[in-house]
Amino acid sequence: MSFYDKLKFNSDGLIPAIVQEQSTGRVLMMAWMNRASIEKTLAAGKTHFWSRSRQKFWMKGETSGHTQTVKDLAFDCDGDTLLIQVEQIGAACHEGYKSCFFRSVESNGRDFKASEPQLETPEEIYGKK
Amino acid sequence: MSFYDKLKFNSDGLIPAIVQEQSTGRVLMMAWMNRASIEKTLAAGKTHFWSRSRQKFWMKGETSGHTQTVKDLAFDCDGDTLLIQVEQIGAACHEGYKSCFFRSVESNGRDFKASEPQLETPEEIYGKK
Repeated sequence: MSFYDKLKFNSDGLIPAIVQEQSTGRVLMMAWMNRASIEKTLAAGKTHFWSRSRQKFWMKGETSGHTQTVKDLAFDCDGDTLLIQVEQIGAACHEGYKSCFFRSVESNGRDFKASEPQLETPEEIYGKK
Repeated sequence: MSFYDKLKFNSDGLIPAIVQEQSTGRVLMMAWMNRASIEKTLAAGKTHFWSRSRQKFWMKGETSGHTQTVKDLAFDCDGDTLLIQVEQIGAACHEGYKSCFFRSVESNGRDFKASEPQLETPEEIYGKK
């Protein structure tokens, strides 16, 4: 049995993929894959996602250079979520933070604060207009 | 501005929540929350989710005793995914593994193997019938 037989894609043919930096354990981002993007990811060894808004494949880092080299691809008990261990080049977040999860809720349960430094500005990553 | 104003719930009013063990960095599971379950989670300090199949709230561990004490709640740049740091009692997975992501794809890109030991059987967790 192939692991693809264990996966449950949603009604749009997609499955959420959590991306974690293997060396630090930092959860970097979550994005969506379809079966073809999983195949591309495993074949190329770099993460490829499906953009729901643009309806196209994208390789993480294709514009920024901040690619993710795949070290492990796991799936959960229900087969409806992936967890991918990667080596991350630079910032994973398009806003220039290592992780997209750079803001945390404060103890009052309402306000929030940045929990890590911004490594680069989006202008530095994507080039000044 | 409240952090709730930063969140984007899907058309069913839900947002995916990744749960990570703070002490080890192990990603334990992913489940869905609505606004009320986030409020319950922050007020009670234990994770509460929304079951899409049963259409009801559930507190993680309410049957098994394997509760999750919340240490941090972060949200991503797009506001459409949560990352919750917890202290996990026992196995997070209903199949008796520490993490729901206990199976990984092998290097042939097709087969898979268990990547961690089963701590308990479901019968041990939920009681023999």
